[in-house]
Amino acid sequence: MEFDYDVAVIGAGSAGMSAYRMAKKEGKKACLIENREYGTKCASYGCMPSKLLIAAAENAHNIQKSSQFGIDVENVKINRSAVMRRVRRERERFVNFVKDDISSFPKDEIKLGTYHFIDDNTLYNEHHDEKLTAKTFVIATGTNPFVLPILKPLLETDLIFDTRRFFDYHLLPKSIAIIGSGVIGLEIGQALTRLGVRTVIIGVRNNISGLKDPIVLERANHIFKEELKIYNNAEITGVEIVQEEFDDWHKDKEVAVSWSENGQQFDERFECVLTATGTRPNVNGLELQNTSLQLENGIPVSDRNSLECLRNDENACNIFIAGDITQDREILHEAILEGQHAGLNASNFLKVVDRKIRTSFSVTFTDPQVMTVGKRYVDLKDGEYAIGTVDYTNQGRSRIMLKNKGLLHMYFSASGSRMLIGAEMCGPDAEYFGAWFATFINRAMTVDDILEEPFYHPTIFESVRTACRDAKKSLDILEKI
Amino acid sequence: MEFDYDVAVIGAGSAGMSAYRMAKKEGKKACLIENREYGTKCASYGCMPSKLLIAAAENAHNIQKSSQFGIDVENVKINRSAVMRRVRRERERFVNFVKDDISSFPKDEIKLGTYHFIDDNTLYNEHHDEKLTAKTFVIATGTNPFVLPILKPLLETDLIFDTRRFFDYHLLPKSIAIIGSGVIGLEIGQALTRLGVRTVIIGVRNNISGLKDPIVLERANHIFKEELKIYNNAEITGVEIVQEEFDDWHKDKEVAVSWSENGQQFDERFECVLTATGTRPNVNGLELQNTSLQLENGIPVSDRNSLECLRNDENACNIFIAGDITQDREILHEAILEGQHAGLNASNFLKVVDRKIRTSFSVTFTDPQVMTVGKRYVDLKDGEYAIGTVDYTNQGRSRIMLKNKGLLHMYFSASGSRMLIGAEMCGPDAEYFGAWFATFINRAMTVDDILEEPFYHPTIFESVRTACRDAKKSLDILEKI
Repeated sequence: MEFDYDVAVIGAGSAGMSAYRMAKKEGKKACLIENREYGTKCASYGCMPSKLLIAAAENAHNIQKSSQFGIDVENVKINRSAVMRRVRRERERFVNFVKDDISSFPKDEIKLGTYHFIDDNTLYNEHHDEKLTAKTFVIATGTNPFVLPILKPLLETDLIFDTRRFFDYHLLPKSIAIIGSGVIGLEIGQALTRLGVRTVIIGVRNNISGLKDPIVLERANHIFKEELKIYNNAEITGVEIVQEEFDDWHKDKEVAVSWSENGQQFDERFECVLTATGTRPNVNGLELQNTSLQLENGIPVSDRNSLECLRNDENACNIFIAGDITQDREILHEAILEGQHAGLNASNFLKVVDRKIRTSFSVTFTDPQVMTVGKRYVDLKDGEYAIGTVDYTNQGRSRIMLKNKGLLHMYFSASGSRMLIGAEMCGPDAEYFGAWFATFINRAMTVDDILEEPFYHPTIFESVRTACRDAKKSLDILEKI
Repeated sequence: MEFDYDVAVIGAGSAGMSAYRMAKKEGKKACLIENREYGTKCASYGCMPSKLLIAAAENAHNIQKSSQFGIDVENVKINRSAVMRRVRRERERFVNFVKDDISSFPKDEIKLGTYHFIDDNTLYNEHHDEKLTAKTFVIATGTNPFVLPILKPLLETDLIFDTRRFFDYHLLPKSIAIIGSGVIGLEIGQALTRLGVRTVIIGVRNNISGLKDPIVLERANHIFKEELKIYNNAEITGVEIVQEEFDDWHKDKEVAVSWSENGQQFDERFECVLTATGTRPNVNGLELQNTSLQLENGIPVSDRNSLECLRNDENACNIFIAGDITQDREILHEAILEGQHAGLNASNFLKVVDRKIRTSFSVTFTDPQVMTVGKRYVDLKDGEYAIGTVDYTNQGRSRIMLKNKGLLHMYFSASGSRMLIGAEMCGPDAEYFGAWFATFINRAMTVDDILEEPFYHPTIFESVRTACRDAKKSLDILEKI
């Protein structure tokens, strides 16, 4: 049977573009399908614009510290439109890089429109009444934000939105309620607070960016609650649009949010509400029920190593999956790696190979940053690990820079190997620790190996030596028992 | 023969204290001799106070960037006394840690005073007419600043000084000439410039913090000369104290400095002059000519691996050396490691062992930072290496944070191994790159290994992937030839 394409990639985000590129590199006839605007999540409303907002917020925050360094400043004014102007201008630049990439692909291989499966090898676009057949597919359609049921009816107003719309605004809001205390809620919540926006963050289960280690989590809760209004053990009990006469002619509506926490009831009005309560796989309009794919709640079940979807029967599956839709580490570098691998396997179908899964690594770009790498605390088994701790309150260089807040826990295997297996941290410049630790883990380095590294003075990295010495003591004792 | 001590350590700085501690740990009777004030160079006038000054300067500099982020600020005033107050207060804290350490040592093992050798096993203190004998010695007397002959006659005035006195001042100067464009000159020069001090840096041989790679050096020169007044291919032609009537009642003297660069002559007056033109080993008053030590210009010749001094005869030498006095990597973590090793060998004399020399690593805490790690450019042999380059001008995260200045060169072995062997960098957060690269080098990682690391997005560390891909291309081509 002849197909229009060897590989059809659905979704022109970071994963999809990587899959498409890989298929081309493998010499295949490929196409890339997108049903929304071009521009990856990363560039449009993810990594990049959030970091731009954070950079402005960090600048504002540093001015708050100036007097401690002996510098006097007057009349600090956050220009609500100028802040968003830089964010939007630089974001446009990043989005244009993506668009330029897509324009560089052959025109007949780029399909804009909604295509749905009619069988395992055929997509159909109603608008153009067009059929498209391919030997293999890569589904890389990303995610949609999950929205609390209580907020859903109000989503179509201008006042309640997710990050996809937040960065379109030309003006920082004057006040905002952020629903969710995960990575996004915390990053944006802290940035807006520092930019003078009256901000409340409302979350559940004491969540702080997904930290699992109870001691690190406790410290993170303490640090962030000192600065931010966070209610992260809360339940939203009511959300209502209220219309009133305001001085401010261009805005006559507000959102009244009610929530409860630990038996207390809170009510506050905000200019808007940002919902950041996680995501769900986006399978909208794919009509996957027309394929042989094994589905769970409508979502394809797939093999983590090969990124091949599973079928209802025992046959090899010609449909692969990559990127955030897998909900396995929703971060850009993983999306790209998954896209490449799914593209490779789709190109060489039936020859399907497993990928090497990289050390897990996650960063929240708050201040202090939150970082997890390697094995998570919840996966550690009692008696099989030792913890090395360092507290940043009086860590030399951190204190010099007035960045002396946080705690690091490094986990070492206590079953003889003494290797670093993971870490959780809420502390200064944690993103750099994550990368360094990933190398330690990848290279199977022991606490003794790490102590042989050169620790430059005075650096924040010196704290790793402190944590390692601490862990070494515990390991030495455990080994004597 | 009975000695008063097993090990006598001369110099209570970072190296000496480490040597003393190691001797105690080895169960030896040891003493620690100091002839100046207690307090290490690091805490008193080195690493720590300079970083404190830099932290204030960075804060001031960030305010200069505020408008680019959309933040308006008025009346920024550097409080010349408040800046120095924090520097001095925190410095005192660091110095007190050192003093506390020394107070915790047994009193009869701490000797304050000038002792000189009268033979290979005996020191003599004239003031107390006291002899002190020991089986072995560790010389850890550090360095003295090297001062240009033209400045020497003026050193005793209050207007010309080195870093040992700079941090004693209660007020930032209004203007300063800094002689030397090495690590210290550049760090202090940039910090003072950013703190509103009229600053001129005068150096030789186009030196920028000892960078050797001509391309990285050129970029560094460009970056720093954009911001700072640097004349680093200059010669000082005159220095004179001038006395005049000034409005400012409390200061009636200035220093007139003249220098020439590329045929041009410059003259400028400054409130003071800081000399930062390197150091020389401090052997003052040790009277080493009374020992059997092999001397070169009065300085002991020693073995880099064992830190044992060499003798004029073929006998084993009971005198060891450690710390900055060796002029081999004058940085704190190396001083401590050397102190420990010399202390170990002195304790177990005649059983002398070699140390493992760590990967060389040096950081200048300017903005952008300057970093070198592993093999230096000058040690690379034509055709045996490939360079991976990354330019920070448009590097994503750096640009977001307005820290997008700099250049990185990574050196890989082209003789088959593809291993990272060294790097030079002038760029954002370079201190973190140095530590990561040292691990790559220590673990003998190839360009391909490094590309397997997780590169989190968006980070400045992502630039390492860019540099590695660049190097990989060159290596692949070189291997095909």
